[in-house]
Amino acid sequence: MSQFSRPHVVIVGAGFGGLSAARALANAPVDVTVIDKRNHHLFQPLLYQVATAALSPADIAGPIRAILGDQRNAKVLLDRVIGIDREKQSLALASGRVVSYDWLIVATGARHSYFGKDHWGAHAPAIKTIDDATAVRCKILLALERAETETDPERRKALLTFVVIGAGPTGVEMAGAIAELAHRSVSNDFRSITPHCSRVVLIGSEPRVLAAFPEDLSTAAQRSIEQLGVELRLGQRVTHVAQDHVMIGEEAIPTHTAIWAAGVMASPAAEWLDAPRDRAGRAIVRGDLTVPGSERVFVIGDTAAFTGPGDRPLPGIAPVAKQQGFYAAQTIMARLAGREPAAFVYRHYGNLATIGRKRAVIDLGRVHLSGWLAWMLWSVVHVFFLVGYRNRLAVGWNLLWNYLTFARHARLINGDVEFTAADVKRLAA
Amino acid sequence: MSQFSRPHVVIVGAGFGGLSAARALANAPVDVTVIDKRNHHLFQPLLYQVATAALSPADIAGPIRAILGDQRNAKVLLDRVIGIDREKQSLALASGRVVSYDWLIVATGARHSYFGKDHWGAHAPAIKTIDDATAVRCKILLALERAETETDPERRKALLTFVVIGAGPTGVEMAGAIAELAHRSVSNDFRSITPHCSRVVLIGSEPRVLAAFPEDLSTAAQRSIEQLGVELRLGQRVTHVAQDHVMIGEEAIPTHTAIWAAGVMASPAAEWLDAPRDRAGRAIVRGDLTVPGSERVFVIGDTAAFTGPGDRPLPGIAPVAKQQGFYAAQTIMARLAGREPAAFVYRHYGNLATIGRKRAVIDLGRVHLSGWLAWMLWSVVHVFFLVGYRNRLAVGWNLLWNYLTFARHARLINGDVEFTAADVKRLAA
Repeated sequence: MSQFSRPHVVIVGAGFGGLSAARALANAPVDVTVIDKRNHHLFQPLLYQVATAALSPADIAGPIRAILGDQRNAKVLLDRVIGIDREKQSLALASGRVVSYDWLIVATGARHSYFGKDHWGAHAPAIKTIDDATAVRCKILLALERAETETDPERRKALLTFVVIGAGPTGVEMAGAIAELAHRSVSNDFRSITPHCSRVVLIGSEPRVLAAFPEDLSTAAQRSIEQLGVELRLGQRVTHVAQDHVMIGEEAIPTHTAIWAAGVMASPAAEWLDAPRDRAGRAIVRGDLTVPGSERVFVIGDTAAFTGPGDRPLPGIAPVAKQQGFYAAQTIMARLAGREPAAFVYRHYGNLATIGRKRAVIDLGRVHLSGWLAWMLWSVVHVFFLVGYRNRLAVGWNLLWNYLTFARHARLINGDVEFTAADVKRLAA
Repeated sequence: MSQFSRPHVVIVGAGFGGLSAARALANAPVDVTVIDKRNHHLFQPLLYQVATAALSPADIAGPIRAILGDQRNAKVLLDRVIGIDREKQSLALASGRVVSYDWLIVATGARHSYFGKDHWGAHAPAIKTIDDATAVRCKILLALERAETETDPERRKALLTFVVIGAGPTGVEMAGAIAELAHRSVSNDFRSITPHCSRVVLIGSEPRVLAAFPEDLSTAAQRSIEQLGVELRLGQRVTHVAQDHVMIGEEAIPTHTAIWAAGVMASPAAEWLDAPRDRAGRAIVRGDLTVPGSERVFVIGDTAAFTGPGDRPLPGIAPVAKQQGFYAAQTIMARLAGREPAAFVYRHYGNLATIGRKRAVIDLGRVHLSGWLAWMLWSVVHVFFLVGYRNRLAVGWNLLWNYLTFARHARLINGDVEFTAADVKRLAA
């Protein structure tokens, strides 16, 4: 890397936290380098809409370069961090490059966690990236295709059974969207299978869905999702995941399409930094979001364990990451100017989750909303934040169109489909 | 397959020809089965827009099931034909299924041809499918990313050189779109490379671009494409394609991004049918589009060699395929009713090609259009035909937006990018 005459702030990860930090430094007397292993920022809250064929990848992902195109003090580097040397203040990248920093903001997010059962991942993929989402989309659409030509009733039933593991916001959104796709959107397009053939099962280990929400909203969400025809299995744990079934305790549910929405694990940033971490792998940060021993190294967003009100760590949601990114940037500017800012305080505005095409729940603290009005608000909030990144109304248009027509326009099966008899047998086994 | 009580028309391939035939049979007293190895119909004329990040795959591809969803006498089968038994009137499919037919319409299109140099395909991909287009999109965007960090001027120059082989409509559209992407759309987003660093070379074996168009339109197209900064190498032949260069005669052009737009080859349908074929592998059909010996087996579109006016075979364009599909359907209905229709006559309305974001050429026979007006007409025609399939205005919206802003919203690099030092070295070698 070339030398910088001004202090060099390196931001690793261009998610909500990293981009928020980069933008907040736009007018600061620093040079900013944003490093990400992908070329696009991903609007993760709508990723399940890609997995269920309602939106295209490019609808919810924008090139990081374009987002920061006008910010002249920012550079973007497509590369992957493989280690951090805190003494030398440098990062080692997968390409072999070494980048030195004066200030470092680590915002590398979280991956899914199978709680030690990583081999389940082959049969129950989680959805964290665009590639995950398009792979799940193919899996769902191919199961419907195979079911259309399957003559054995038991095999057909297994092909038309979709199991979502985890009943938090991601699982609830996913199960609702699959139910709509299987029951409504494709109901006209198949000749042998009919909408009521499909079975969507949502498994949660807690006794209620959306356990992080107040109980009345959980109940409302539960009612909505049952109205969509989703079968709830709550307070139960998955004991095994195989290619053709999912075990709950001793009971086997035959399925070829299981989706994992149960657990997340922080990226290995805490390991790189040799910093103390919690059980989910998140770096335990101080009140100013720095790691112990380095007042110039910040960890934010899903990668950080910051203890909020009530001694509970802050949840892994976009507003936390954004506020922390902004705070880290402000703190760097303050310290460069010789001031010392107050500790980070998270301002919680509310929790949102959506269930299908016209229901959502919103927890604004004292105000609880559910049903159609909540869904409208959810749509407006999401499109509003997305437009901030994309300058386009395409998503609003698509969401509105899908709402009006039940259409799922992005029903593409990518890649070469395998049609060998053995494959059909294996899939339908 | 289940038995059909009514005559069974099997259509292989859901391109322009196959879909046109299927729809024309909507009210006929027949059962229709459409077989395609992909689940989506592809609007191929806009595929280069996906390859250059202007449109998303789902913008130009719709599920075949959805397109035929309302046609109750039509079934859709996702499978691949591996052979046809004309005596038994049946098709063998890759899944192991066998489908029998009373009438057969083969509309399996064309693939690209490297004129016997298939190994060139690894370094100069052609764009025939969604996966081809997204792969080329990744290749172009990755070359720009690598160039941004490359310090060796020669290597950087090679990374920023884009070579399009073939100066027909596909090659001209592709070269124009790459020039715009490299020169304009990304000009704000990179810090080390500047727009004028990029070099786009268009190689054609004929002495002029768009050789199938009248000479004045060729000249207009040539002027337009040169104004976009494309370097033309006409009347020249590529003698070798390697990972890091393309040879024209004895001259090597260093490049890491070559794209093949030079030749097509019919699908192997003529082989399956054991029918006479021409040099491009197309089945030579009779005046009623059937193959000799079978008045119930039609071959249409790019797969067929039908001699039109002036003893020249009809070109491989959408209107030919659509009209032939309609004709085949009409002929089946007529023969079922005991009538014998006249031979197929192609009605030619015009030829269109577009060059970049606001220029096109249109040959309407006596009327020749070029420039901005032609581009507007090109846009309207394409969006009009697309909307016929998609019922959406998203493409019109995207094209308009791209026109107004130069934006290329679908700049996604899919999959895991390799960052090993060896890889960087290989790419920049």
